[in-house]
Amino acid sequence: MPDIKLIQCQDALVAGPSKTITSKTEKQWNVRVSPSVNRSRNPIRETLASITANTPSSSKAPINLGLGDPTYYPLHSPPPAAIAAVEKAVLDGKSNGYLNGVGSSEARQAVVDYHMRWDQVQYSIDDVVLTHGVGQGLDLIFSVMIPPASVERSNILLPRPGFAQYTALLANLDAEVRYYDCLEENDWEVDVDMLNSLCDEETRAILINNPSNPCGSNYSREALQGILEIAEKHKIPIIADEIYGHMTWSSPFVPLASLSTSVPIITLSGLSKRFLVPGWRFGWICLHDPLGVASSLKKGIQCWGNRFMGPNSLIQAALPTILATEPEWYDQVLSKIEVLAKIVHKGVSDAPGLSATFPSGAMYSFVKIEEGAFPALQDDVAFATALYNEQAVFVLPGMCFGMPGYFRVVLGTPADVMLDVIERLQEFCQKHGDL
Amino acid sequence: MPDIKLIQCQDALVAGPSKTITSKTEKQWNVRVSPSVNRSRNPIRETLASITANTPSSSKAPINLGLGDPTYYPLHSPPPAAIAAVEKAVLDGKSNGYLNGVGSSEARQAVVDYHMRWDQVQYSIDDVVLTHGVGQGLDLIFSVMIPPASVERSNILLPRPGFAQYTALLANLDAEVRYYDCLEENDWEVDVDMLNSLCDEETRAILINNPSNPCGSNYSREALQGILEIAEKHKIPIIADEIYGHMTWSSPFVPLASLSTSVPIITLSGLSKRFLVPGWRFGWICLHDPLGVASSLKKGIQCWGNRFMGPNSLIQAALPTILATEPEWYDQVLSKIEVLAKIVHKGVSDAPGLSATFPSGAMYSFVKIEEGAFPALQDDVAFATALYNEQAVFVLPGMCFGMPGYFRVVLGTPADVMLDVIERLQEFCQKHGDL
Ligand SMILES: Cc1ncc(COP(=O)(O)O)c(C=O)c1O
Ligand SMILES: Cc1ncc(COP(=O)(O)O)c(C=O)c1O
Repeated sequence: MPDIKLIQCQDALVAGPSKTITSKTEKQWNVRVSPSVNRSRNPIRETLASITANTPSSSKAPINLGLGDPTYYPLHSPPPAAIAAVEKAVLDGKSNGYLNGVGSSEARQAVVDYHMRWDQVQYSIDDVVLTHGVGQGLDLIFSVMIPPASVERSNILLPRPGFAQYTALLANLDAEVRYYDCLEENDWEVDVDMLNSLCDEETRAILINNPSNPCGSNYSREALQGILEIAEKHKIPIIADEIYGHMTWSSPFVPLASLSTSVPIITLSGLSKRFLVPGWRFGWICLHDPLGVASSLKKGIQCWGNRFMGPNSLIQAALPTILATEPEWYDQVLSKIEVLAKIVHKGVSDAPGLSATFPSGAMYSFVKIEEGAFPALQDDVAFATALYNEQAVFVLPGMCFGMPGYFRVVLGTPADVMLDVIERLQEFCQKHGDL
Repeated sequence: MPDIKLIQCQDALVAGPSKTITSKTEKQWNVRVSPSVNRSRNPIRETLASITANTPSSSKAPINLGLGDPTYYPLHSPPPAAIAAVEKAVLDGKSNGYLNGVGSSEARQAVVDYHMRWDQVQYSIDDVVLTHGVGQGLDLIFSVMIPPASVERSNILLPRPGFAQYTALLANLDAEVRYYDCLEENDWEVDVDMLNSLCDEETRAILINNPSNPCGSNYSREALQGILEIAEKHKIPIIADEIYGHMTWSSPFVPLASLSTSVPIITLSGLSKRFLVPGWRFGWICLHDPLGVASSLKKGIQCWGNRFMGPNSLIQAALPTILATEPEWYDQVLSKIEVLAKIVHKGVSDAPGLSATFPSGAMYSFVKIEEGAFPALQDDVAFATALYNEQAVFVLPGMCFGMPGYFRVVLGTPADVMLDVIERLQEFCQKHGDL
C-alpha cells in the first residue's frame, strides 16, 4: 500500500504541470533531529556487529561470552517462588492498573525490607523510586543531577574500565566525563589518589560500580572507606551502581551506603543480575542521606520518577515475594559462577600471553592480553575478531570498557562449555603466540 | 541504625576539638540538582491532592471519575488470551533475557501486523520501537525531535484542551510550546486556521491526539485531511497520539497515517487503554514516512530506543497473541463505554448549568460548566472541590487540561455507579444553580 502511495506521490510531485509550477516556491521537507541523536552511540553494539560481520571459518559450535545476560545459556533459573508470584499476579487480575509513578507503596516497601535485610541500611519508602531497570535508573539520576551547560558547568567521575552505558547515557547531558582508574595490580580497586585529583568544585557525582562490570572485582571495606573519605572531603555525593550487589564468593559484599555516615549515596540495583531476569526491566534507586543534606536530590528523584510511570505492575505485585528469596537460593547460583571463575582463571593462567586477576564478584573475568604476546594481532579488537573467526568464541574487547588490551569473559555458560572455551583459547594463544 | 550514625556524625562534627578547627575551612554540603527538576510539575497530581485534601462531608460512597485508568472499577477485563499468553511466557522460562533495545523482532512484527490489520498502514519492523508505555514514547520522540536552545530555537504545537503529560514532559526540553484550540462547537475538532497560523520555520512537530483525552472526540476523515494539508504546506511532521485508536462507537476511527501520502507521521499507541492493562507499561512508536524524507528521524528513534532497554520481555513474548485479539472482544468493551456515554450525555443535558457534546471516542466526556450558572462556585476547581465535598464524586477540573470552565468524566464505572453519579450531579447542580 504505502509503496503505491509513495510512487503516486512522487509522480504527482514531478509530473503534473501545476505541481511543476508550485514546486518552485513550495517548501522542501527537511525533517531535523536534535544533535543528541548523533551522540547516542553504543560501542558494544558497534563492536559486536563488526566482529561478527563474517561467519567464523571454524566449524566449531559458536560460543557467545559477550552478553552480560545470565539467562543466555541455560545455567540458572529465576527463584521458583518469583515465577509463582508473577503467575499469581497475571491470573488474579488485580494488578493491571496504573500505579504510583515512582512505584506502588508495597513494592517500594519490599525494596526497603530487602536492603534492611541484606545491607543493614534503613530506608523509608520515600527514599525509593522504581525504574525500568538500572539502565533507566541511571538515565534518571544523571538527568536529575546534571545541569545544562548554559546554567552551570559540571563534571562526573566514572570508573575505567567501566560499563559503556554510563558514557552513552551521559553523551546527551552536559557534564564533562572524567575517568578514574581501577588498578588491576590492586584487585581492580579504585586509584584513590587519582579519584581525589579529579574532584573539583564542578564535580556533581562520583560513580562507583561494585561489584564491577567488567572487572569482576569486589571492593574491600577499607577501599570503600577510602572512597568515602574523598567524597566527604570534597562534599560530593556518590552514585553506587550495585546491580551485582551480593554476587560475590571469596569475600562478602559491603554495600557502600552501609558505611556512609555523611556522604549521600544513591544506590541503584534491580532484578537483572542477582535474580536472573534482565528482560523483566526492573530496577530501583535508593537515596541514603545520613545528614539530610540531599533533600533537593530526593525531591528531584521523586519528580523525575513521576515523569512517566514506573515498571510493570505484575512484577511490582510480585516484588515482595521475589525479594524475600531465601539465602540458599542465591548460594547455588553463586557456586556455579565460582566454578566458572576457577575454570577461567586456571585456563587463562595456563594460556601463553594471557593473565587475569581471580574474579571475586559479579559474573565476569577481565583478561589481560600481554603486550607483544601476539605479534600478528595488533590490539584487543583484532584478538577478539580472530578468536571469533578461528575458534567461534565471542568475547568483548576491553576497548568497549575504555580499556584496550583486555577482553571480558562472561561467567554464564555451563561448566563443560567453559572448559571447551578454555581449550579453544589455549589453542588460539599457542597458534598466535610469539613463542 | 542510620539514625544512630546520624547522631554520632553530627556529634562528631560539632563536638571534637580537631573537628572544630577543621570545620572552619571544611567545605559544606551543597547537593544541587538540575533546574529541570523544578520544571517537572504535574497539574493533575497537584489538583487531585488539593481537591481530596479533606474527607467529603457527604456520607455517600466516594466515586472516583478522575483517573484515566480503565481498570479502576471492575467493568472490563483484559482479553483472556492475553492473560494466557503472559502466563505461558512466565512459566516457560524462555522470556527472561535481554532483548533488542528497541524490542524483539517478533514483538515489533506483531505491531506491524496489528497496524496492517486495523489501520491498513504498512510498516516494516525497522519503523517500530517498543516503549515503556506511550508516556515514555512521548519522552523519546520529544527528546529526538527537540534540539537544545543553544543549537536552534524550536516550537511544538499541542492541542488545547489536551493531555497534561505533553506539557510536563516538554518542560524539560527547550521547545516553545504553542497550543491550538479544539472547538467544542465543532465536535472538538481542530481549529485548522489557528493551527495554520501557529506554524512557522521553527515548528518541529504538530501533536494530534485522536481520539482525544479529555474531549472524547473522534475526528472525521475530512478534518484529518485538513490537518494533513497544513502539515504538508509547512512541511512539518505530525506526532499522532492514537493510544485510544479504534476506541470509537458512533463512527469509525481513521488512523492519521492511513491518510498521509507525504507528511511523516509518528504514531504512538500501546496496551494501556484498548487492551485495558495500563500497569503493564507497554507502548510503541511507528514511523510512517511515505516520501522517505524522515530518515534522520528514523535513525533518531532507533538510537534513543537503544539508550535503555524496551519494555518487559514477558509482555513482548505475549504481544503477538495480545494484538491478534478478535474484533468481537473489543466490541463488548466499547458497547459498555457507549452505554456510559449515553448515560452521562443524557444526565448532563438534564442537569441545569451543564452541557456536553456527545462523546464518540476514547473514554471521556468533557462537560461544560455554563458561565454564571453557579454563582457561588467561581471556577472549575471550586466546582470539583464542592462536588467532592458534598457528593463524594471526584472529577478532574478542565484546568488540568488547559481548559478552565469544564470538567472531565471518565467513562469507566459500571452503569449503576454512573447512574448514581448523574443523580448526585443533578442534585448538586440544582442546589448551586442560579435558578
Ligand atoms: C554495571 C551495570 N550497571 C547497569 C546495568 C544495566 O542493568 P539493567 O538490566 O537493570 O538495566 C548493567 C547491565 O549489564 C551493568 O553491568
Ligand atoms: C492521550 C494520552 N496519551 C498517552 C497516555 C499515556 O499512556 P501510557 O499508559 O501508555 O503511558 C495517556 C494516558 O492517560 C493519554 O490519555
